[in-house]
Order: sequence, then structure tokens, then C-alpha cells
Amino acid sequence: MIKIAVLGYGTVGSGVVEVIERNRETVNKKAGEDLEVKYILDLRDFPGDPYEDRLVHDFGRILEDDEVSIVCETMGGVGAAYEFTRQALCAGKSVCTSNKELVATHGPELLELAREHDCNYLFEASVGGGIPIIRPLNYCLTAERIESITGILNGTTNYILSKMEYEGADYENVLKAAQEKGYAERNPEADVEGYDACRKIAILSSLMTGKNVDYRKIYTEGITGVEPRDFEYARQMGMSIKLLAVSRETKDGTLAMVSPFLIDAEHPLHMVNGVFNAVLVHGNMLGDSMYYGRGAGKLPTASAVVSDVIDCVRHMGKVIMCFWDACDADLISIDRVEHRFFFRVKEGSENTVKALFGDGLEEIRLPGDVRECGYITPVMTEKEFADCYGRLGDSAVGCRLRLEA
Amino acid sequence: MIKIAVLGYGTVGSGVVEVIERNRETVNKKAGEDLEVKYILDLRDFPGDPYEDRLVHDFGRILEDDEVSIVCETMGGVGAAYEFTRQALCAGKSVCTSNKELVATHGPELLELAREHDCNYLFEASVGGGIPIIRPLNYCLTAERIESITGILNGTTNYILSKMEYEGADYENVLKAAQEKGYAERNPEADVEGYDACRKIAILSSLMTGKNVDYRKIYTEGITGVEPRDFEYARQMGMSIKLLAVSRETKDGTLAMVSPFLIDAEHPLHMVNGVFNAVLVHGNMLGDSMYYGRGAGKLPTASAVVSDVIDCVRHMGKVIMCFWDACDADLISIDRVEHRFFFRVKEGSENTVKALFGDGLEEIRLPGDVRECGYITPVMTEKEFADCYGRLGDSAVGCRLRLEA
Repeated sequence: MIKIAVLGYGTVGSGVVEVIERNRETVNKKAGEDLEVKYILDLRDFPGDPYEDRLVHDFGRILEDDEVSIVCETMGGVGAAYEFTRQALCAGKSVCTSNKELVATHGPELLELAREHDCNYLFEASVGGGIPIIRPLNYCLTAERIESITGILNGTTNYILSKMEYEGADYENVLKAAQEKGYAERNPEADVEGYDACRKIAILSSLMTGKNVDYRKIYTEGITGVEPRDFEYARQMGMSIKLLAVSRETKDGTLAMVSPFLIDAEHPLHMVNGVFNAVLVHGNMLGDSMYYGRGAGKLPTASAVVSDVIDCVRHMGKVIMCFWDACDADLISIDRVEHRFFFRVKEGSENTVKALFGDGLEEIRLPGDVRECGYITPVMTEKEFADCYGRLGDSAVGCRLRLEA
Repeated sequence: MIKIAVLGYGTVGSGVVEVIERNRETVNKKAGEDLEVKYILDLRDFPGDPYEDRLVHDFGRILEDDEVSIVCETMGGVGAAYEFTRQALCAGKSVCTSNKELVATHGPELLELAREHDCNYLFEASVGGGIPIIRPLNYCLTAERIESITGILNGTTNYILSKMEYEGADYENVLKAAQEKGYAERNPEADVEGYDACRKIAILSSLMTGKNVDYRKIYTEGITGVEPRDFEYARQMGMSIKLLAVSRETKDGTLAMVSPFLIDAEHPLHMVNGVFNAVLVHGNMLGDSMYYGRGAGKLPTASAVVSDVIDCVRHMGKVIMCFWDACDADLISIDRVEHRFFFRVKEGSENTVKALFGDGLEEIRLPGDVRECGYITPVMTEKEFADCYGRLGDSAVGCRLRLEA
């Protein structure tokens, strides 16, 4: 019998208890041992809850109980969650987490602590919710040199962009509807500004490089500037607009960035709509492989946490390999990154555009629209583009977008 | 230093040697040990080959060498490959294979042999080439009750169907072109009749149920009956035609079948074109997740074999869990399976169709075509459909197709 403690009885924490309960037979069979949730830590009381008797308010109870060998950290944040995780690992208790912020902030340190104490720190649920992606990178694609990872890693923004694309609605209205449906938070900043996707690509980039990719150094741009008009151009070009989190090995170092991108209908990520997430991994032998599914939600995320618990049980006393060193990865400056860009200008700016960008532009016009015009640039660096684009001044309309190659 | 033997120096076998060589640094790091290919078994000689000195013609040399702890079986077939695998496992040498036929035929027995001798029989490369799917089922989706698996598991047929769809070409011509490009074998039967996909879904179904799904009991239908005209109807309905391998838990037992299906544009497998493969897994907590990539090819397949080798090294002396018992899974008869069906009839057969199928049909007409007409039935069992369809006699044109829900 393996005894577990769940920290935080919110959406994911209660999901963990539910998955272990509802799939008891499968879970115990796959673990090779019977699992039991012995404690649930939460500051709140839950009178009448079927697991009321497991509730404790004091982490010390869990820490001191030698029977507890695995802790599920589903609290979130980098305060108490960090402290409790450290203490659990130092006591030789493995920790399974859905807390992307903590993993992105203190991953290497916590992994090192786990190694020192012959236990494990696992975080499958921290990226892509229930989609297996951490374990595929760590256990499956082990014969590959991973050259790039491109993900749709945030369900809220993908839902908003899909709605804008298919219904022609504007950002503000779609956001409001998403908030009413519970697909977006009351304070949507972490999602719509790309911060959530940034934490997640920091984790994936770290696993790709084997070094630490600091999320604070990742260029991050959200979706708040994308307009319905941009989708009209995208449609005209047979493309879609997605918030992509990108990590790529280049000859000068690792590129990591989050930004809305125009992508082709042929691109595997083009079909990822609504709250779904997907991660496209390019390896030097396999080429592209893609992992697709629900990137959030109570039970999908909880399922990933429980799969980590099962992995811990299977490797009790043994450290599962995970290559994520504390030393910083060599990130290249966004200025040096090359893309094609799309931008829009007011009618009558043709000469200004030509003077700045030269002749290599592709012109895109929406049928019947004489007020403005779109352009696609050749491949150029971010710096070259920003220099020219900045000088367009009032001629530019809306935001500019990057094209995913 | 871990010493390896490769059995069969054909496409995949030489790929294994190449992956270990070209990705030496990554592979050794991920394995935690240095790997060395000590022997390559082949009946042929390869004068001038850089690995000529490793070539042996006698399996006994490998078997008797205690230094060899891992054997990669990339020979194919169920004759010598079976014997060598048995002998290697009995000698405590782990075996990693790309041989779907052997795994589908003798999987449970070989897994049991491995368990008895504290070694492993791993077969990631046997399904989906380089796409991780065996390990995601065995290591990742462990907290899920898997309810269904639907796959595009054969690249040759998917390439042919994609070409027919996008170029309007007929089956025979596309097959010939595919053979010239090396995408189809000279004798294409195993691919186009669905036998290859059948072996693969037998393996996935066995892992889903934990019992043995005998591939000889799986209803299997190939793509040779699909006509360009079927794609015209599919386009008219906003659908595509794919050869699907399906495994699904029903209240009466497990359904397993291979057949061409009409699928909606919204279906995640709709975007899988050309030689790509994908597997859609439905779990009771996570819902849908999909695994997509190159389902064949020298280096992708070899990469999967090498990932198995790395897994063996990480678990030396320890048996990796795999739930696939020898006892037969409870398969339901194809007669009882329910679908909607699509079929075509000659013009003037409306009354016959109505008399046989009743009023619940949806009529599909191609613009400008007065020679024939298509129908979609309501949900009905295979037996009910076959009874009515058989009585259409000469009125029926072409083949009938199933609709994927």
C-alpha cells in the first residue's frame, strides 16, 4: 500500500482524488501497488465532503508521517508550494506537480534535491495538461537530437483565436464570452499576454537543451493586438493565426519565444482548434512528431498527475533520469531571429513601404477593401524588420504578425 | 559499456547502427552508459561497409557472448526471428524489435519469457514507426481507462488514398506511381489489403485490453475497392476517406477492425495525409489524445528501436511493466458492430433502395451526375446492412463505405 498526500484541494487536487478513486482498478494494476490518499492539505474546510476525514491544515502532519511516500502538489504559486516541495523532497518523499510556475522557476534545484534524496520530482501535468509530452521527451524520443519544439500551449488563447477566426468576432467580445463560459479567468492576463505559454515553453526548452531556460528571458507577446481584420487576411492567404510557443536550436544558440503567428493550412498545428493544445517536436532522425489533446481541465490534468504518481511507485527508491541542469542555456537575442513578417498599412502608403522594405514584398489585398493593404516581407531579422516597421509611423494599421515557416 | 547485437542488416537494422553512430553523444547520455554495436548478423556479406568487421553469419556467436546484453531484432518474419528472439531472451538478453508480425503473433509468450529471465522484450518500432505510441500507452496514459484507439497505421495506403483524394487519380495508377517512388512494395498486398494495419491494431488492442487480441480474428478490409468517384462524394459531404484501424471497448466486448472509413473534416485524423500515421486514443479521464508522425522509414523506425535499447539500459536487470496476458480478449463479432454506411446505386434504383432500407436514408448527389446516386444510412449493425445491401444486386455500384462516428 502506497500512501499519498494531496496539497491543495482545488480543481486539480480534487481531480487527483477523483481519478485515483474512479480508476482505482486500472491505477493500482498499472502501479503494481494499491494507492491510498491519506491526507489532503487545504486551508479551507470541506464539511460533508466524502474525503473530509483526510483533510489537514498543517503540512507538518504530512511531512512527519513516514507512511506518506508521494506528495501531489496541486496548490500552484511559488510560495508555500515551493517550501512544501523542498521539505517533502528533503524527507525523501517524491513530488508530482501540475504547478508550471514552480517548475519553470525552480525546476533544476528541485530536481537536484530529489536526486540527492533518492526520490523524484515529476511534472507531466505542468505542460499540456493531460497530453503526454514531458514523458515522451524524457523517455520516448531519447534517440533523437531534438532540434525544435513548437506548441499551442494555452487553451484559453487558442479558444479565443479560434472563435475570432470562425465567427469573425473581435477580441474583447470573445474574451467576455470565454470568461462567462469559464474558459478564461476573470483576470485573463496570464493567458492572453502569453505568460502561461511562456512558463510552459521554458520547461520544454529546458528539457530540449538539457540546460536551464529562464522564462524571464523568453520574448513573450500575447494576443491582445490581434484584430478580426487580421483573420480576414489570414483566410485570404489560406492561413490561420495561432499563439505559438517556439523553441529552436540555431547555430548561434537556442531561440525561445511566444507570439501570435500566421501558419499555413498544411502545418500540423493548423488543425488545433478551441481549447485543444498540441506540441510539435522535430527530431533529427524522426522528423516531426506531434502530441495533441486537452491542454487543461480538472480530470485531464489530474490524470497526468496520477500517471506521475504511478511512475514514482514503479521507481520507488530509484531516481528517474531527467536532464535539466542548473546552468543557463545559451539563448539568442530576439533581434537576431529571422522570420517573414506580415503587416498592414493605410491605402496610399505604397511608396513609403517600398522605400523602406524594397521590392521583395508580397502584397495582399482583401477583395473590395480600398482603405488598407497587407504585405508579407521576405525572411529578415527581427531587428531589420523593427527598424523599417517603426519608420512606417502612422501608415501602419493594427499589429504586425510573424509567419511560421 | 553496453554491447549490442543487431539482427538483420537491412533498412531498419542499418538505420539502428546509423542512429547509434550519428547521435552517439545524445544516446549515451540518455542511456547513462556508452553503447557499442558489437555484432551485426546477416547472411549476406557487405564488403567495404564501415561495419564489415562486426558482421557475423552465425547467431550462436551472439548468443554465447556474455558481453552482449541487448539484441535488436530487425529481421522481420516469424521464422528465424522468432527462434533467435526466444534464445536471446532465454539467455537473459533483452530484445528490441521492429517486427510487428512477430509481436502480433507471439507477443505474450515472448513477454513472459523476458519476465522469466529478468530482461525485456520491447517493441516501440512495431507500430507507428518512429511515433511514440507503445510507451505512451504503457508509461504515460497509466491513469486512464482506454476506451478506444483509432489509427491511421499504414503509410502506403494513406499515401495512396491522399493521392486519390487530391489528384482524382484512380487506385491502379496511384499504386504504380507509389511503387516507382518506393512508397509501396513490388507486392503491395500486405499494405493495400490492410494486413499490416491489422497486425498493428492487434498489438495496440492487446495493450488496451491487457489481454491477447489475435490478429487472425480481426475483421480486415483493404483499400482496393475505393474508387475516385467515392472521393467525389466524400468531398461533396466535406469528408475524407482513410484506412482506419479501430479498437473499441463496448458493453459486449472489444471491437477490433480495419477498413476504409469516411471521416469528417472535424475529426483529428482528417489532417493526416501522405505517408504520415497517427493514433487517436480515447481515455475516460483525458478524452482524446493523438500521436502523429512518420509511421515508417529507415531512420524514424530505427530511432524507435534505439529508444527501446536506451530503455533497456536504464532498466538493466529489471522487468519493465507491460500488461499483455496470453488469455484471449473477448472480441465481438463484426456482425454486431454498428455504423452508418455509405453506398452508391445506379439511377432508377430509388424504389428498390427505399423498399430495402426504409425512409431514414440521406441522399447524396454529385452535381450534374444523373447516372448514379449515393446514400447514407442511419446507424445499423453490419449484419442488418449486409442483408439489405446484398439484396440490391446489380443496382449497387462500386463499394460501400463505413462512416467513422
